[in-house]
Amino acid sequence: MTVRIGVIGTGAIGREHIERVTRTVSGARISAVADLDTAAAEKAAARCGARVAASGAELIGADDVDAVLVASWGPTHAEHVLAAVAAAKPVLCEKPLATTVADCRRIMAAEQRLGRRLVQVGFMRRYDPGYREVKRAVEDGRIGRPLLMHCAHRNRSAPLAYTTEMAAQDSAVHEIDAARWLLADEIVSAQVVLPRSTSRRHPHLADPQVMLFETAGGVRIDVEVFVNCQYGYDVQCETVGELGLIRLPDPARPHLRAAARAGTEIDQGWGERFSAAFDAELRAWCDSVAAGTASGPSAWDGYAATAVAAATVEAQRTGGVVPVAVGERPALYA
Amino acid sequence: MTVRIGVIGTGAIGREHIERVTRTVSGARISAVADLDTAAAEKAAARCGARVAASGAELIGADDVDAVLVASWGPTHAEHVLAAVAAAKPVLCEKPLATTVADCRRIMAAEQRLGRRLVQVGFMRRYDPGYREVKRAVEDGRIGRPLLMHCAHRNRSAPLAYTTEMAAQDSAVHEIDAARWLLADEIVSAQVVLPRSTSRRHPHLADPQVMLFETAGGVRIDVEVFVNCQYGYDVQCETVGELGLIRLPDPARPHLRAAARAGTEIDQGWGERFSAAFDAELRAWCDSVAAGTASGPSAWDGYAATAVAAATVEAQRTGGVVPVAVGERPALYA
Amino acid sequence: MTVRIGVIGTGAIGREHIERVTRTVSGARISAVADLDTAAAEKAAARCGARVAASGAELIGADDVDAVLVASWGPTHAEHVLAAVAAAKPVLCEKPLATTVADCRRIMAAEQRLGRRLVQVGFMRRYDPGYREVKRAVEDGRIGRPLLMHCAHRNRSAPLAYTTEMAAQDSAVHEIDAARWLLADEIVSAQVVLPRSTSRRHPHLADPQVMLFETAGGVRIDVEVFVNCQYGYDVQCETVGELGLIRLPDPARPHLRAAARAGTEIDQGWGERFSAAFDAELRAWCDSVAAGTASGPSAWDGYAATAVAAATVEAQRTGGVVPVAVGERPALYA
Amino acid sequence: MTVRIGVIGTGAIGREHIERVTRTVSGARISAVADLDTAAAEKAAARCGARVAASGAELIGADDVDAVLVASWGPTHAEHVLAAVAAAKPVLCEKPLATTVADCRRIMAAEQRLGRRLVQVGFMRRYDPGYREVKRAVEDGRIGRPLLMHCAHRNRSAPLAYTTEMAAQDSAVHEIDAARWLLADEIVSAQVVLPRSTSRRHPHLADPQVMLFETAGGVRIDVEVFVNCQYGYDVQCETVGELGLIRLPDPARPHLRAAARAGTEIDQGWGERFSAAFDAELRAWCDSVAAGTASGPSAWDGYAATAVAAATVEAQRTGGVVPVAVGERPALYA
Repeated sequence: MTVRIGVIGTGAIGREHIERVTRTVSGARISAVADLDTAAAEKAAARCGARVAASGAELIGADDVDAVLVASWGPTHAEHVLAAVAAAKPVLCEKPLATTVADCRRIMAAEQRLGRRLVQVGFMRRYDPGYREVKRAVEDGRIGRPLLMHCAHRNRSAPLAYTTEMAAQDSAVHEIDAARWLLADEIVSAQVVLPRSTSRRHPHLADPQVMLFETAGGVRIDVEVFVNCQYGYDVQCETVGELGLIRLPDPARPHLRAAARAGTEIDQGWGERFSAAFDAELRAWCDSVAAGTASGPSAWDGYAATAVAAATVEAQRTGGVVPVAVGERPALYA
Repeated sequence: MTVRIGVIGTGAIGREHIERVTRTVSGARISAVADLDTAAAEKAAARCGARVAASGAELIGADDVDAVLVASWGPTHAEHVLAAVAAAKPVLCEKPLATTVADCRRIMAAEQRLGRRLVQVGFMRRYDPGYREVKRAVEDGRIGRPLLMHCAHRNRSAPLAYTTEMAAQDSAVHEIDAARWLLADEIVSAQVVLPRSTSRRHPHLADPQVMLFETAGGVRIDVEVFVNCQYGYDVQCETVGELGLIRLPDPARPHLRAAARAGTEIDQGWGERFSAAFDAELRAWCDSVAAGTASGPSAWDGYAATAVAAATVEAQRTGGVVPVAVGERPALYA
Repeated sequence: MTVRIGVIGTGAIGREHIERVTRTVSGARISAVADLDTAAAEKAAARCGARVAASGAELIGADDVDAVLVASWGPTHAEHVLAAVAAAKPVLCEKPLATTVADCRRIMAAEQRLGRRLVQVGFMRRYDPGYREVKRAVEDGRIGRPLLMHCAHRNRSAPLAYTTEMAAQDSAVHEIDAARWLLADEIVSAQVVLPRSTSRRHPHLADPQVMLFETAGGVRIDVEVFVNCQYGYDVQCETVGELGLIRLPDPARPHLRAAARAGTEIDQGWGERFSAAFDAELRAWCDSVAAGTASGPSAWDGYAATAVAAATVEAQRTGGVVPVAVGERPALYA
Repeated sequence: MTVRIGVIGTGAIGREHIERVTRTVSGARISAVADLDTAAAEKAAARCGARVAASGAELIGADDVDAVLVASWGPTHAEHVLAAVAAAKPVLCEKPLATTVADCRRIMAAEQRLGRRLVQVGFMRRYDPGYREVKRAVEDGRIGRPLLMHCAHRNRSAPLAYTTEMAAQDSAVHEIDAARWLLADEIVSAQVVLPRSTSRRHPHLADPQVMLFETAGGVRIDVEVFVNCQYGYDVQCETVGELGLIRLPDPARPHLRAAARAGTEIDQGWGERFSAAFDAELRAWCDSVAAGTASGPSAWDGYAATAVAAATVEAQRTGGVVPVAVGERPALYA
């Protein structure tokens, strides 16, 4: 049986997912696409042999759609995810699950009423081979009990529309999820330290930023977010435990010696860096849809990430330590 | 349209290909499998929903088989490939294309009579992201005109059946193809230098070996083959040019510091090391089958590799320099 | 002319300096040693052919002592340094210059009255080839204007006598000086973040700690101090600028592949890690003594480091951000 | 007691040694220098406070010279070394010990008549911290019994006077000695393989070259010599044993990320690369002179290296395998 997927949103990430499902995922195909920009939807549909749905709602309800992939603008996520849950269809939602904590709670409530998980959130790093190997090593006790985590999230440059808040909501949110997942622990406070900003940014932006998190278990995490670092896309993650430390590997690139320098090239974008992670994420999601099960980052994970990101945005404004209280994890997400 | 693939040979590599086509290649499925060991064939068929063909010949001729994947015992390759060409069906043949130079010539002759390429040889390293990036860099002139190549091919341990000749035919044959491809040059001589052998080998085996090749263009290549190196699976390839050198990257593994040591784990097998390469190879082959085109390593490449490996085996015996003359490349393979 | 050096303090670091001057520094010799533990002093003196002085004061005043090296217990530093300045003799004082800010000011006042620099503080990292190359690269604009610094200072294990305060005063003080020197900037505030402590420590100790500093120019610095990290001695320093980043190199150790692991051994102590730095420090100091000049970390540097360390200790207690005001730098130290 | 050293030859390497002894070696000073170029001798003498000797012979015989350092033109080495042995004075001779095997034998005969070792040959790599750590690891059995060695010796560019023979005599001679020392084994044959030469060389020169050596114990060694590699000075040495492999470390240089590239700078010359080795070599030699003992590479090592280099030059001409028979090692050099 081939899983028929409907995609809402045919922007850059939506088109990447469509291409990926079409080319590298067995047992799945795109059956319908929806976008407010009809021309974009038609173009995307033509490339993968899908139909254009009249709207996200129509797509979610349609008989030729077994599962929904939400890749539209963030503020519309909650509406589509809630509709998919109401239709009892599995949904993979790009991060964020929702832009407000209240909407995240609404989604969890809907799943709980239904009594089963349908929502997976697009935290693709959990599928990156490097992160997965780090996770295994930490669980195997290779570094002992974790105590500290040092992270960096660097982009070559940010567009004009990128705001100081997005450093938390769009960039660090990946580190927030990765830390929660690697440590199997919840974040309980956030602080933001602002160094002088680089001159190579749009004037409205505080860049770089250092975000500090504490977990319920007492682990301390620092995250450098630097979205105009100029030299490339660079994701670092080091976990320090009682017996040692483990670092996320840099991508495998050839070693070159020429012109008095030895080294490698640096990836320039997340698409290149996390290509294998996206492949694995979509394959795992389609498999779980076909099997009628749920796996991967849940609505709870999407909620916790949104809650921590919101506290981080408040910490940007106040300069102080902002507590985060995610509450008790519902049994459905145990 | 889904490409229906028939697989001949359900040993380890055959089963890996079946699993891969089934799970990670879109637009293709396994429709039939054949194996002299009927029980093995039935087991493999059951796992992917294919039928068991009565024989390789039946499979090749069947209407439900669009393309053939040959993963049987080396000495049977030529027969199956010739049958596939006779049936005008695309065929992906695991290396070697054939165990004798004469059989390789026969296959090329068949393709030439037909007037088009149907055969792809399973030199999967050409699809490894690291090798591909090295190739691009060499072509872009990043290291200037190549002069030397230093390679190593190490396995943790070899089974009892592994012979001194197989170090050339089964192991170094990958380096032989990779060198021809990276340098876009033909090998014209082979020499083998035998150090004392490791004590950790079966007594009949010369291990390690150093193979020396020269290309028509004057590039010199040295290849260490060491199939009982104990520490893991390790493939090294360094090309030295007039302006610099480039090295194949080691796999991206997390960096660990613990117990007074810093470093990474080492892959233990080729399946792990070249997993992404096999994915890309099969995807590219299925795409070219669907498109009715041919790409990747050709029968000519399979022939040249077999010819060089044969000279290397002779060099193992004589200790001297053995010339290789592959002759003029037919227009079909230009 | 050979510089005759008197050494006060013949503990571990004192004996190392004596050995170093005797064996690897030309143009200098140890003429006298002093220690409250007379037996230790006699043993050290015998090994290098020096006499035992009756006291630090006697040594400083003696005609056979051209310059003084203070390697005694920290709280005695100020007294010996002040005596050396009073005697107008050059003095190399192990860190800290003094344990209180007031004593550091007293020493600066004495030098200023004299109108010339006599004091060098033992911040040997400024002589480490790696740190020096980082300094040159930063000054050459290789990474653009610095914005952030990420540091780690890890020891295998700490003795019972090591206290939470010493993480700032004895360990991070090296990072404090290195950051001031690399950035040519003063630290204006300190904060300490305490993760859960490792179980592998003495119960009185908070370990690890994360210290956060801000400079007058707005650079933010984070320093992990972890003195029971178990795996070895490990010093990391990464400076992030507007154009790129630069990392202190790890020591050059052979790369080993064996038993499924690839990597290097890790140094186990600071003596091994900074051996070349100590050589260069002592050689530079003896040269400047011979030349009648002053170079290297000054009393001002010793004062600033002590002031920042004191603020860090206060920050350990309060949990908040503690300002540091070092005031105007006197002309003598411009 | 200060060792008084006379230096014959004040070219680049001679001046480096003079500077080194003067500045970084305790317990030794330069008392006399000799050079056919009197002006050069006077200039060198003035810088270190030594006198100018009338000739090498006068210097060797003089009362103010305890030990002799020969850094003159290679063909004059034998004469000076023989004179020093005749005068029963310790002598450190830059490589080669002598340019002919016959002269090397003459020197060994003179030492044997005297009944004690006076000669040390300037194979400074034995004092390089990286090589020493490799040696220790090999001796400790970390890689098991050695089987293979892969080496590279690359220079940015060679002067006009550099000849094809010098690739063996002046460049690979370092690898020849290092291999004999690391393996504690003698080389018994040499072969040279010539790839096409780089276009960036003087027309008379074959560059690069690959030299192949075999030891009495059956270890095979390949050495790439490439003296116009353009990108820098690069020395590689990898030893493969029954249990694993060990690689000489690259120098510790800061890691830089900027302009889409990650990596380090490459040393540009041997002086920079082996600076610590030269320091340690001269310190060890002066210590052994002071102690009246002998250590380090002996006349036997100098002889063996010259014999292997001579065979390598013959192999360059013939293209074949040239045997080397160093004979029985005299008891003096056991």
